[in-house]
Amino acid sequence: MNQAQRVVQYVYLTPEDHLRISSSVIAHELKLSNRETRWIIDSIIGKEDGLGVENLSGSGAIASAYSRAYKETFTLTYVTGRTVGIGAYLARLGMRCIQRLDQPIILTGFSALNKLLGREVYSSHMQLGGPKIMATSGVVHLTVLDDLEGVSAILKWLSYVPPYSGGPLPILSPSDPLERPVEYFPQNSCDPRGAICGMLDGTGKWLGGIFDKDSFVETLEGWARTVVTGRAKLGGIPVGIVAVETQTVMQIIPADPGQLDSHERVVPQAGQVWFPDSASKTAQALMDFNYEELPLFILANWRGFSGGQRDLFEGILQAGSTIVENLRTYKQPVFVYIPMMGELRGGAWVVVDSRINSDHIEMYAERTAKGNVLEPEGMIEIKFRTKELLECMGRLDQQLINLKKKLQEARSTGAHATSESSAAAEQARRSSLPVYTQIATKSLTTGYFTEMQRRGNQRSCDWNNCRSFFYKRLRRRVVEGSLIKTVKEASGDQLSHKSATNMIKKWFLDSKIAGGREDAWADDERFFAWKDDLRNYEDKLQELRVQKVLLQLSNIGDSPLDLRALPQGLAALLHKVEPSSRAQLVDELRKVLG
Amino acid sequence: MNQAQRVVQYVYLTPEDHLRISSSVIAHELKLSNRETRWIIDSIIGKEDGLGVENLSGSGAIASAYSRAYKETFTLTYVTGRTVGIGAYLARLGMRCIQRLDQPIILTGFSALNKLLGREVYSSHMQLGGPKIMATSGVVHLTVLDDLEGVSAILKWLSYVPPYSGGPLPILSPSDPLERPVEYFPQNSCDPRGAICGMLDGTGKWLGGIFDKDSFVETLEGWARTVVTGRAKLGGIPVGIVAVETQTVMQIIPADPGQLDSHERVVPQAGQVWFPDSASKTAQALMDFNYEELPLFILANWRGFSGGQRDLFEGILQAGSTIVENLRTYKQPVFVYIPMMGELRGGAWVVVDSRINSDHIEMYAERTAKGNVLEPEGMIEIKFRTKELLECMGRLDQQLINLKKKLQEARSTGAHATSESSAAAEQARRSSLPVYTQIATKSLTTGYFTEMQRRGNQRSCDWNNCRSFFYKRLRRRVVEGSLIKTVKEASGDQLSHKSATNMIKKWFLDSKIAGGREDAWADDERFFAWKDDLRNYEDKLQELRVQKVLLQLSNIGDSPLDLRALPQGLAALLHKVEPSSRAQLVDELRKVLG
Repeated sequence: MNQAQRVVQYVYLTPEDHLRISSSVIAHELKLSNRETRWIIDSIIGKEDGLGVENLSGSGAIASAYSRAYKETFTLTYVTGRTVGIGAYLARLGMRCIQRLDQPIILTGFSALNKLLGREVYSSHMQLGGPKIMATSGVVHLTVLDDLEGVSAILKWLSYVPPYSGGPLPILSPSDPLERPVEYFPQNSCDPRGAICGMLDGTGKWLGGIFDKDSFVETLEGWARTVVTGRAKLGGIPVGIVAVETQTVMQIIPADPGQLDSHERVVPQAGQVWFPDSASKTAQALMDFNYEELPLFILANWRGFSGGQRDLFEGILQAGSTIVENLRTYKQPVFVYIPMMGELRGGAWVVVDSRINSDHIEMYAERTAKGNVLEPEGMIEIKFRTKELLECMGRLDQQLINLKKKLQEARSTGAHATSESSAAAEQARRSSLPVYTQIATKSLTTGYFTEMQRRGNQRSCDWNNCRSFFYKRLRRRVVEGSLIKTVKEASGDQLSHKSATNMIKKWFLDSKIAGGREDAWADDERFFAWKDDLRNYEDKLQELRVQKVLLQLSNIGDSPLDLRALPQGLAALLHKVEPSSRAQLVDELRKVLG
Repeated sequence: MNQAQRVVQYVYLTPEDHLRISSSVIAHELKLSNRETRWIIDSIIGKEDGLGVENLSGSGAIASAYSRAYKETFTLTYVTGRTVGIGAYLARLGMRCIQRLDQPIILTGFSALNKLLGREVYSSHMQLGGPKIMATSGVVHLTVLDDLEGVSAILKWLSYVPPYSGGPLPILSPSDPLERPVEYFPQNSCDPRGAICGMLDGTGKWLGGIFDKDSFVETLEGWARTVVTGRAKLGGIPVGIVAVETQTVMQIIPADPGQLDSHERVVPQAGQVWFPDSASKTAQALMDFNYEELPLFILANWRGFSGGQRDLFEGILQAGSTIVENLRTYKQPVFVYIPMMGELRGGAWVVVDSRINSDHIEMYAERTAKGNVLEPEGMIEIKFRTKELLECMGRLDQQLINLKKKLQEARSTGAHATSESSAAAEQARRSSLPVYTQIATKSLTTGYFTEMQRRGNQRSCDWNNCRSFFYKRLRRRVVEGSLIKTVKEASGDQLSHKSATNMIKKWFLDSKIAGGREDAWADDERFFAWKDDLRNYEDKLQELRVQKVLLQLSNIGDSPLDLRALPQGLAALLHKVEPSSRAQLVDELRKVLG
């Protein structure tokens, strides 16, 4: 037999060798016709534990722990070296991820993949999981050039989040004045980055945006670019931001090296429209911000969701639903603001409406902003179809009215001019239709702020002073929020967010500081002064605690089984009380027992 | 001016008309040079609320409520008519969705879309959101021909889930015998549907699968077909199932009518491999089953995650991470079983390992199943690269050893035969390399069950009796689970799942029924008999309640603020206690006070 055709049938052990190492292999016996016995090796276990099942199991344990950690604390993965397999999964399980530009995130090495595929498809790890793939598909939030930049990005990120879960927001006094107007003015459309952090004008002069100068850190920048997400500060208070690109962007879908006939595709995505990728990005940002316990600003400027066949196939409904779910469960103050020259229509409005989460969402619109169900071009398809337009023309157009009259006269006299008049009417209708379509469109250009205000609970907020306006409102809500938390805790979480808010409002209005004036509630400084002095409401908190204890004891009283534990429980309790106050407590309890 | 060129500049009101209806329009004043005044209409508000912002806000409220309902109860949407906009969102927000084959789920009507796009792209609603799009992209779980089939599917679905959240599983006695062997035997690969519900053999004889005959309802069938998901019953107990397709399937990506140069693409997807779509499908099924409170079977038979560039770009890491998260939070018994002829490797193992959620996941393997990190073809790329193989050959191959010897002799004598021997050695190496590669591959074919068993905590379960085995184990765990729930409740949720289990085990082993035998714990019938008689452990439960009350009271004792409410609380409690038992309680409390 030619050497090149040699084939291995099996690997085997002699009976002597098998006896010696049988615990390290799995083998079965084969008796040859020449009476020789061979132990054919099915599997080599090896002497020691190595790259085996125990590693997979350990990886599972790490994956589970890190997945949980994302929900319970702040997680951030920095990919400073090649990250493979479970490493790549951890990078994703912790969600927040910074990638060094020269290091890949991959599931399988490129040469092992080539081996599996049976041909040389890939030539490097970077081709598989470099930033060109990872930063454009939503895994990587930030990319950095080197480790110094990486560590610096980590520190900056940490400076925007509370020191521990449930802790206070890290608020520093801002260098950018609070009262400065917003100087960037949208012309035809609202540039999202200009609105957030300002921009330089033609002369090199800086035109300020809404948030503190140099505080904006954009994340997920390379992915789904019709939406802009990141963190910034407003008057030193860290916030999460979602804003909307108004320009058309090009989505680049790389050619798949694994498929020979594929080629790079460039798909244009219109601005102000949610596509499956940008809806997913929005949902992802909301989830990250929520776990970071950041207040949220949505500069809402969407015409709607893209509802084409491809969008439906690629999961626009799934992604849009996740926006709803992540806003519904948002636990910090949310401000939805339709900015200057902005608009918010139909489905896009629905998923950010304040009633998704009325405890936390407030909606505002700039005076130039528009919002309603459909754009006029879509609305006339429903309210002014050609039939309705023709009816309208017949009612209003003097030329048509005259022709109609003539036609009727002709008919009643049976004159032969009928077909001539009829043709003239048809001609008049046809030539006037475009004009009436324009008129219909014009008259359906509804949805201005005033209308929204009348119909919903939107509030106005003018562009040039929206920075100071939102700062004040944000500060107020952050302070209110911390007191609401205290109140809810005192009540043993028996109170809803709304009841707690109403309770605080009542306490404040009944206080001396409010001076009996209903409108004092709107006076932030008065409220802060009241809130800062615990003596103003500590007896109220105590009352809540009493209610809580009453409820707890009452629950014990409800259950005969629990009741039997009461004497023993009381003894344990008294044992804990300091001797100095015990005597008085016992006295009071005796009185209760009568 | 020609009529065809007529353009509408604005729509206006005379001052008189404006005065009359100014509350219904938004208009601004224009003074013409002829001193005429016109009120130019910016927006028509209309007299009554209609199709406006208030509808969007209401839609937001519904969306929020339905999104929450999915997490708190059983939601199911039946699309019996055209479902548009917020309707489409609701269908998705409730997750479970049945679509009548002739009714579309869309965001925007096709004619409004054409208007927005400026050309006739779409010709029907069905083209946008018919089952060809919706049932292949994961929105639609089931499709039906007509309303009768739809209602029947709803009723069948309801018969698999508890009557209320937290309620007992609806268990009916099965018509399919519990002790019957599994008669469908995988030949080269394990057909998922055959394994689940059996199949007919060539002669028309039914070969039973693992689960009850005719109980399997596949859902999400048209989407991501490399994974098979659905609900079935095992001995009458409803369960969720995830299984793996072993054949290559063709994923059809429809041409996008919105893009003229696009065409339908057919992408082959290998069996036993997780792709972005099938990983998402797996995660979706896990989430649905978990909220339906169903026990779960995963017939795990994956070679791994597909880690090509396209897979990474399309979100394989995101989808795989969601599997981890949804298994981690699974609250019912989970059985991961590597079936006959099955295998489980690397990343695929990691995301279903029992340590993802050791409270609930148990792992089993059939004796023929394999599992480890890499397949042999990938492993030799790491453990036996060409360099190592050549070294190995130099050590073992007699021909090479002889040639090497000759070469060394020639070198030492300085003979001119050197280059000749060297070429011969090179030739021998080259011809032997493929053989050694085969040997290396053979010897790396590790990962048989025995190895897994030695290394991890996998248990074996033979194919032909796995039905009765898993039924027994499932029944045991369902019963155990309900007792664990009782114990945790009695303790005021102070106990972990594991502590509660250990406590129950100890109670049982200390009982008379166990008869002092450690192995009685494995005796299901003995355990059921013990569990069914509350008297066996009611005093233990009472002890837990006492501990709970002690802890509650002790927490009051920890807080001086809460302590002040104690006398009042005690009074309220006593007021609730029945007069007949009050006297005794007061006596006991007096004793405590001393």
